[in-house]
Amino acid sequence: MDWLERITWTADGLVPVIAQEKDSGDVLMFAWMNREALARTAELGEAVYWSRSRNRLWHKGEESGHVQKVHSIRIDCDQDVVLLRITQLGHEPGIACHTGRHSCFFEELRTTADGQRAWQAVDPVLKDPATIYRS
Amino acid sequence: MDWLERITWTADGLVPVIAQEKDSGDVLMFAWMNREALARTAELGEAVYWSRSRNRLWHKGEESGHVQKVHSIRIDCDQDVVLLRITQLGHEPGIACHTGRHSCFFEELRTTADGQRAWQAVDPVLKDPATIYRS
Repeated sequence: MDWLERITWTADGLVPVIAQEKDSGDVLMFAWMNREALARTAELGEAVYWSRSRNRLWHKGEESGHVQKVHSIRIDCDQDVVLLRITQLGHEPGIACHTGRHSCFFEELRTTADGQRAWQAVDPVLKDPATIYRS
Repeated sequence: MDWLERITWTADGLVPVIAQEKDSGDVLMFAWMNREALARTAELGEAVYWSRSRNRLWHKGEESGHVQKVHSIRIDCDQDVVLLRITQLGHEPGIACHTGRHSCFFEELRTTADGQRAWQAVDPVLKDPATIYRS
């Protein structure tokens, strides 16, 4: 498919993907796709990533139920990054992170009382991860 | 600095960075940082990236004037992606892309009249790139 070849794939045949919640604008997660993952995402209208840790296609939500409905697929000016606008579905909508939080970007760099910088979790856990992945 | 070591750097000593406009929520660009770039970003309050093409630190806006004021720095649950919330400054505020557009993510996958998928530029050029980079 020609449109897939417009993308500059990494040497591993991957492209980085940003998933942004359509309604809130929140950046929910960052993952990777290969050609097949992107083709299936476009076909299915749901996010299908390439799991680098498991080395296989990963239909987001296949275990957690936290499927991402895809509204649009964009590429950047270098054609080497994909931006999805999605709705985060599931039994408890709006949970993208495996920690049970809304977004994977929940740690923020803050300055502590002693003047040091440190990462602090600033967003709440909405659902116990143990109950998300219990089979 | 300890907080830098919380990040999982690539083998090349880099981390991917998403720049999101604070007020609009728009994802404006995607780039990379090394430790020094991230440390300087935190210190300066302006985005400093690592340019992989030029192989040097890149204080965004150093040529174009399109500096990014940094409001917050977050990392994701794997500590291997950084999310900046920024304000896109400059003579003409709100232009992040070297093409003169608001965002680098201006091409969207659409279905054409003959049923084929194709990328289409869907955002306007706000300023002629030739006038951005003219010295």
